[in-house]
Amino acid sequence: MTHSLFAKHQETLERALQAIATRGYWSPFTEMPSPRAYGETAAADGEAAFKQYLNAAFPLTQRASTGSVGQEVSPFGFPLGTTYPGFEIDALLARVSDAHKTWRAASPQAWVGVSLEILKRLNERSFEMANAVMHTTGQAFMMAFQAGGPHAQDRGLEAVAYAWDELRRIPDSAYWEKPQGKNPPLAMEKRYTVVPRGVALVLGCCTFPTWNGYPGLFASLATGNAVIVKPHPGAILPLAITVKIAREVLEEAGFDPDVVTLAATNPNDGAIVQQLAKRDEVRVIDFTGSTANGDWLETNARQAQVYTEKAGVNQIVIDSTDDLKGMARNIGFSLALYSGQMCTAPQNIYIPRDGIQTPDGKVSFDEVVAAIAGSVQKTCGDPAKAVELLGAIQNEGVLARIDEARKVGRVVLDSQSLQHPAFADARVRTPLIVALDVADETTYTREWFGPITFVIAVDSSAQAFALAGRTAAKHGALTLSAYTTSAEGEALALDAALEGRVALSLNLTGGVFVNQSAAYSDYHGTGGNPAANASLADAAFVANRFRVVQSRHHVAAKSEAGAA
Amino acid sequence: MTHSLFAKHQETLERALQAIATRGYWSPFTEMPSPRAYGETAAADGEAAFKQYLNAAFPLTQRASTGSVGQEVSPFGFPLGTTYPGFEIDALLARVSDAHKTWRAASPQAWVGVSLEILKRLNERSFEMANAVMHTTGQAFMMAFQAGGPHAQDRGLEAVAYAWDELRRIPDSAYWEKPQGKNPPLAMEKRYTVVPRGVALVLGCCTFPTWNGYPGLFASLATGNAVIVKPHPGAILPLAITVKIAREVLEEAGFDPDVVTLAATNPNDGAIVQQLAKRDEVRVIDFTGSTANGDWLETNARQAQVYTEKAGVNQIVIDSTDDLKGMARNIGFSLALYSGQMCTAPQNIYIPRDGIQTPDGKVSFDEVVAAIAGSVQKTCGDPAKAVELLGAIQNEGVLARIDEARKVGRVVLDSQSLQHPAFADARVRTPLIVALDVADETTYTREWFGPITFVIAVDSSAQAFALAGRTAAKHGALTLSAYTTSAEGEALALDAALEGRVALSLNLTGGVFVNQSAAYSDYHGTGGNPAANASLADAAFVANRFRVVQSRHHVAAKSEAGAA
Repeated sequence: MTHSLFAKHQETLERALQAIATRGYWSPFTEMPSPRAYGETAAADGEAAFKQYLNAAFPLTQRASTGSVGQEVSPFGFPLGTTYPGFEIDALLARVSDAHKTWRAASPQAWVGVSLEILKRLNERSFEMANAVMHTTGQAFMMAFQAGGPHAQDRGLEAVAYAWDELRRIPDSAYWEKPQGKNPPLAMEKRYTVVPRGVALVLGCCTFPTWNGYPGLFASLATGNAVIVKPHPGAILPLAITVKIAREVLEEAGFDPDVVTLAATNPNDGAIVQQLAKRDEVRVIDFTGSTANGDWLETNARQAQVYTEKAGVNQIVIDSTDDLKGMARNIGFSLALYSGQMCTAPQNIYIPRDGIQTPDGKVSFDEVVAAIAGSVQKTCGDPAKAVELLGAIQNEGVLARIDEARKVGRVVLDSQSLQHPAFADARVRTPLIVALDVADETTYTREWFGPITFVIAVDSSAQAFALAGRTAAKHGALTLSAYTTSAEGEALALDAALEGRVALSLNLTGGVFVNQSAAYSDYHGTGGNPAANASLADAAFVANRFRVVQSRHHVAAKSEAGAA
Repeated sequence: MTHSLFAKHQETLERALQAIATRGYWSPFTEMPSPRAYGETAAADGEAAFKQYLNAAFPLTQRASTGSVGQEVSPFGFPLGTTYPGFEIDALLARVSDAHKTWRAASPQAWVGVSLEILKRLNERSFEMANAVMHTTGQAFMMAFQAGGPHAQDRGLEAVAYAWDELRRIPDSAYWEKPQGKNPPLAMEKRYTVVPRGVALVLGCCTFPTWNGYPGLFASLATGNAVIVKPHPGAILPLAITVKIAREVLEEAGFDPDVVTLAATNPNDGAIVQQLAKRDEVRVIDFTGSTANGDWLETNARQAQVYTEKAGVNQIVIDSTDDLKGMARNIGFSLALYSGQMCTAPQNIYIPRDGIQTPDGKVSFDEVVAAIAGSVQKTCGDPAKAVELLGAIQNEGVLARIDEARKVGRVVLDSQSLQHPAFADARVRTPLIVALDVADETTYTREWFGPITFVIAVDSSAQAFALAGRTAAKHGALTLSAYTTSAEGEALALDAALEGRVALSLNLTGGVFVNQSAAYSDYHGTGGNPAANASLADAAFVANRFRVVQSRHHVAAKSEAGAA
C-alpha cells in the first residue's frame, strides 16, 4: 500500500528523478519572494514569525532536554536573544534510539513521503526562514531567501530523489529458481529489507546552515535514519525552525517526533561535538566546516559514514577573453556576493604577467586587474544597493583575516566598511584585492575565507592551468573558472579540472556566476579533492546510508524437472 | 560511437542488469565442468596448462619488474615451483600511473566492454583456473571449478553490471535553461566527465582468490581505474592467470597492458603491503582477509576508498523443525564443505538445552547434536568421496586451530585425518564438533576459521536469537541460519538478522546450503556489521570508485524571453 504522503508528492518526486537524470533546469519551488507564489501576507507573516523568536525561548519541546543554550548575534548588529533546549548526550541518544525503532521499521515510501512533506512545509515558511538565515549568517535578504529557502529546499529534494532512486531498485522479494538438469529445480523465495544505518548526525555551518545542511539531513531521513541536527552555535535558528517543522510532520504522520532532534550548543562546543560524533549509536555524519574539524571526524568517528565539506581554494584562470567588460562585471559580482563568504567564491585569479588577448588587442596585467577592481568598486559604489549584495560579515574571524591579508602583498583595492542604512551596527565590508606573484605559493594555496581575493601574476596561462589543477588536487577546491577564446585554452582548462577533480565554468560573462551551483544539474563538489569527500548529490552520497538484509527459504518450484 | 567490445557483450550486460534488478536466478556461465559447454578437450587442456606452470617462470612480462618471487605449496602436498616477476613499489606505481592515462581517458563503454571481454575469456579458461584454484586453496576439484571459475566470473559480472548501472545514469551533457521572467532565459550547456579515482589495489585471500577478488577488480576496472592485483602469497597462480588474461585483452583493445598488473610477493609480505596501501596514488583498496589487516587498512590507508571483508561468526539457531533428518543432512554438508574454510560456513549452532520440537515430539539437545554429528560422519564416511567435498586444509594455521579448539569444550565429534587416494601428502581433515554452554561466550564469539563447529546449549531459542543478533552486530557475520516451524520463531529470526545486519536463511533442508551465496540474487555481506564494510554487490560498492567533473558555459537560449 502506498503511503499517503508518498502518494501526495509522487508527481514532484517523479519530476525530480527526471531532473537528476537529464540535469536540465527544474525546480518545484519559486525562488523569487513573490506574493503571487507565497501569498500576499507571506512577507509580513515571515518577519513577524522571526520577531517572535527574538528574546524568547524557541518553541521546541524535546523530551530529555536539559537547561537552555543560545548566544546568537545577528551580523547586522543585535543579539537574537533566542534560547533553545540544551541536551545531555546519553539522554539524547537514548531518546533518539528509542524513537528510531518505529521509524526504521516503516517503509522506504514512508521515509520518502515524510521527507517530501517536510520540504513542502519548509517552502511555505521561506520568508520566516529568510529572516532567520539573514540574521544568523549575515546574508542580505534576497540571498537569505533564495539560498536559505527554495535553493536549500531544492538541494534537500535532490537528495531525496537520489535516495529514492536507490531504494526503488531494491525489490521487496524475488523468486529464485535454479535448474538442476533432470532433477527438480532448486527454488527459493527471497525477501529484502532495507535497514538504515542508525542515528545520523548533521553538523551545520554558520554561512549556509540550510543549503549545506539539507542534503545530509534529507539523504539520511529518506533512507530511514534518525537525524540529530547540531547547528553551528552562530546559526542555530534556521535549523531549529527546520527541526520543528520536521517534528510536526513526523508526529502528524504517526511517528515519534524525536526521529529528528535539535542538539543546540553555545560557542566553543568542540568537546561536546567530538564526544557525540564518536558515539557508537552515531552511524552517519554530515559535516560542513573547517578542514581541521572535518579531518578530525574522518580520522576519529570511524564507526560512522562521514561526509565532509571542508576548506578549498577556488581559482580563476584568465587566458584570453572576447568580452573584457562582461568578464570583469561577472567576476566583480562574484567577489562581492555575500562578501566572498561562499565556499564557491573565487579566491585566486591568475593573469599572465604580460597581459591577455582581447578583441581590442593585448591588455596588460594591470589593466585586467583594474577592470576587475573597477567592477567591484562600481558594484559597491552605492552603499544602500551594495549592502543588498554584500550582506554582513558573519564573524570577527573574517575581519581579522582581512587585516592579515592586507599585509601579504600589494593592496590593489582595499576593503572598506560600509554603513548599512537599516542596521547601524551591521558588519559590512567590501572586497579586498591583493596582488601576488606566482612565486607566493605558500600564501595563496591556503583558503582565505571572506572578501579576500588575490590577483596573481603568472608566466603564462599554461602555467596557471597546471597550477590550478595541482592546487585543487592538493589543497581542495569546489570551483574553477576559466576565460579563454582558444580551443587550446579550453583543453588546458578541462585538463586542469580533471586533474583537480573540480567543477569548471568557462567564460562566464552573463547572468550565471561561478559561485552558483544549481540543484539537479550542477554537482556541488566532486568528492575527488580535499575540499569535500562527497558530492551534492550523487548515488555515492545516499547508497551507503542504508544496507539490505535478506531472508531466504525454500519454496516449491514453479518449473518442472528438466524444463529449464 | 559504441565501443566494439561493449557492443559485443551488450546483450549479456542487459541480462545482468535485469538480474540484479529482479534478483532471480541467472548466469551466462555454465557451472558444470561439462564438455558440451566447454569443449571436449577443455578438461585435458586445462590440466595441461596448469602443469606447464609448475616448476617454471609464469609467462608474464611486466615492465619495471624486479627479481622473482613465488613459494606456493599445494595443500594437496607438493610445491608448485612457479615463480612470478617481483616488483619495487616506486617503479610499479610509476608504470601503472603512466598506463592509466589513456585508460582513464577512454569511455565508460570501453571500460565496461573490456571488462566483459576479460570475463568471457576467463570463463573459457575455467578448467585451467580450477586446477590453479584447487592447488593453491585446497578446494576439491568441483568446488575449485565452480567457485573459482563460473561463480567467481558471475560475481565479477555482477560488479560490472552495478558499475554500468551507475555510469549509464550520468549524461554526457545537458542543456540548462532557467527562465528569467520577462528577460531572456539564462542558458548553459553542461558536460559531465566520469573520472576514475586512480589506482586501485586488490588484496587477495588464500581461500577464494578469484571469487573474493573479482568483485573489487572488476568494479574498479569497469569504472576506469587501473588495478594492481596483490594476491595472497599462498594463492598467487589463480590471480596471475587472471591478470595475464586481462592484459591480453587490454593490449588487443589498444590499451597499455599495465592497466592491470600483478604484484606477487613471498610469504610475510605485511610491510610491503602496508607501504603500497598507504601510497598516495592508491585510491581504492579491496581487501579480503583477517580483521587485524582489514582494520589496519581502514585506519591507515586514509587516502583510499577501502572495501573490506574480514572475520565473522556465522551462526545457526535451532528452535524447532519439521524435518530433523533434512536439517541434519543440510547442516552436516555445510560443515564438511571445503572443511569449513568458507567465510560463510557456520561456526556456532545454538540448541535449547531442553531440546526442540519435531513432528515426532520433543528431541533432546544430545539427540540433535547426534543427528548433526551423524550426518557429518556419514558425509565423511567414504574417504574417496569425502575428499571431493572436504578438499584439503589451506595452511598449517588451521591445523593448529583445530588442536586449540579440542581443548575448549567437550569434543562431540573429533576431527580426523583422511588419506587422499590421489595425493598422498594432502592435508585432509574432517570437521570437529565441540559442545559448549551459552556461558562460554568469550570462546564462541570469536572466529575459529576452519572445520571447527560449536554446538552451544542455550536456555531457550529466544535467548539464542537475541544472542545471534547481538553477536553478529558486535563481532560480525556473513550468514545466519535458523530452523523454526513457528511464525513467532521466524519473526525472532528476522529480528536477529536485522539487529545483526546479516543475511538469513530459514529452514534449509534441501539442496541449498547456508554457505552458498548466488550472484545477482544474494547480497554477500551486508556491509552493516564488522565482518564486512561493503556488500557484494550493490550501488555503494561501485558508486564511489569514480567521480564526475562537470564543465559549463553559456549558450544561446532556445526559448524566448517570458516564454517559460
